[in-house]
Amino acid sequence: MLAIEGGAANWAPERWKRRFLETCSNRKVALLPHDACAPADVRFAAVWKPKPGVLAAFPNLRAIFNLGAGVDALIADPTLPDVPIVRVAVGDLTSRMTEYVVLHVLLHHRRLLELMDDQRHRRWQPKEQWAANALTVGIMGLGTLGLDAAQVLQRLGFNIAGWSARPKSADGIACFSGNDGFEPFLRRTDILVCLLPLTPETKHILNRSVFERLNRNSPLGAPVLINAGRGGLQVEADILACLNDGTLGAATCDVFETEPLPANNPLWPHPKLVVTPHNAADTDPDAISAYVAQQIERFEAGKPLENVVDLTRGY
Amino acid sequence: MLAIEGGAANWAPERWKRRFLETCSNRKVALLPHDACAPADVRFAAVWKPKPGVLAAFPNLRAIFNLGAGVDALIADPTLPDVPIVRVAVGDLTSRMTEYVVLHVLLHHRRLLELMDDQRHRRWQPKEQWAANALTVGIMGLGTLGLDAAQVLQRLGFNIAGWSARPKSADGIACFSGNDGFEPFLRRTDILVCLLPLTPETKHILNRSVFERLNRNSPLGAPVLINAGRGGLQVEADILACLNDGTLGAATCDVFETEPLPANNPLWPHPKLVVTPHNAADTDPDAISAYVAQQIERFEAGKPLENVVDLTRGY
Repeated sequence: MLAIEGGAANWAPERWKRRFLETCSNRKVALLPHDACAPADVRFAAVWKPKPGVLAAFPNLRAIFNLGAGVDALIADPTLPDVPIVRVAVGDLTSRMTEYVVLHVLLHHRRLLELMDDQRHRRWQPKEQWAANALTVGIMGLGTLGLDAAQVLQRLGFNIAGWSARPKSADGIACFSGNDGFEPFLRRTDILVCLLPLTPETKHILNRSVFERLNRNSPLGAPVLINAGRGGLQVEADILACLNDGTLGAATCDVFETEPLPANNPLWPHPKLVVTPHNAADTDPDAISAYVAQQIERFEAGKPLENVVDLTRGY
Repeated sequence: MLAIEGGAANWAPERWKRRFLETCSNRKVALLPHDACAPADVRFAAVWKPKPGVLAAFPNLRAIFNLGAGVDALIADPTLPDVPIVRVAVGDLTSRMTEYVVLHVLLHHRRLLELMDDQRHRRWQPKEQWAANALTVGIMGLGTLGLDAAQVLQRLGFNIAGWSARPKSADGIACFSGNDGFEPFLRRTDILVCLLPLTPETKHILNRSVFERLNRNSPLGAPVLINAGRGGLQVEADILACLNDGTLGAATCDVFETEPLPANNPLWPHPKLVVTPHNAADTDPDAISAYVAQQIERFEAGKPLENVVDLTRGY
């Protein structure tokens, strides 16, 4: 039996259940906590930010499927059963994140916030435009998502730098890693895109000291931040202050320290900030349920699961 | 001698003169009407929307370089000397147009106008997202610009249809042409991108009858228009009425029947319309002046000019 559990907002579990019933047609599917379900029957769980302690109730659980890219909320549960956690890594989620990153890089590159302000004031004011190859997009996190976005941005003409905790290499990307690589990576970056996982090492990594070390001679005037990773990566008071004092020229945030972003949060009305409601890469039930079904089949055929989370590194 | 002439708004001829002096270092360069210049000495003219009649003053003119993609304003001059007109076709201009098209396709695809409205009202409301491959971007005009934008949109997962006056074919693009191909092209299109040249045949081609024939079952709810061609291609009263009655879901216009768009024009404040000030693909003096210098060298070495405008078809 496959149990589906989700405690988060923005989660429409009925839609997921329908898809799982279709793709895992030879299994029982229970939507928790709504459906009746004998705990001992549950062998697989598909979850998104389940309530801590919920998964410990299934004595025969064999694997957990995390229905999004980030596992930080899941692995914070001290009672989590010791079974493999599979991070969904389907092309669909990657494509959506690439759409989001490309959209917001181009939006800031083409000065659309200023142009939209001109439109509100009925001002016809063409802006000076720099070429994409005059700018470097610096991507923090060179996993599947970072590399895919990098490819499209390269095709559009941007220079790409990448930073990751451990050394990586990729065609046409200036790759930096670890503490030593952080400074040269930041110094060349005009548009900083953060796709890092949230771990104890990356918590609050997007702070004033980092923003100050971005390219101070950027053709953009001041560098730009795009965070589509996790809210815990950013220090929101620093983002606000740096937008106000010109350390950052503009920013897009899809994620926040508290979600939903409270109505009284001063980030909402900032004219240089685009706020989106954690929907950079919503997972699509069609693609994900097919992936989970395929992984369960692999597992039951004795093959190893793919994309298993490494608990020692936290992603 | 090379004379540079430009009568249009948004034109900074001093910057162009500096670049031409650098790239055509063995020639005299005159910026008209400011600089003194003996008409008989002028062999090449680089122009952007020159005043009608100006070019007829040069008896020894050998070629005209048009410093943008569209030649409609230039060839409307009945006194235009009978010499080759070279349309600049540099990668830089193509890249900028691709940036613009990709930015605005993604903006509407990812419902950014609605999300920005939510931000203004401090509403955290994730939207349902359809996958790129559920949508077809229909591109009118399959020249250098249309094909380059199509490539990037394909890489992002969109289905691509193309329409052109004469038959063309391109990898992975469903190509349609002429009157017979117009109807099936429109019927499958969710996001219509217009990059056509302005000719007597294409004038006002973007009208209500065309918008009504776009995909009425679009996942977007209603289809989207992006016009980055020429203002004369569109019927602005139809765009406004179709945005208001739901025939179009949203639109982006970079070009208008009258430019600059007058402050009292009702397009400015429309909440479903993005207005940009004809800056989709501003030409970059660095890239273009190098191209013109190279063409002059070719010409003087007895080789044919490239990208010569065909006056019988008008582009």
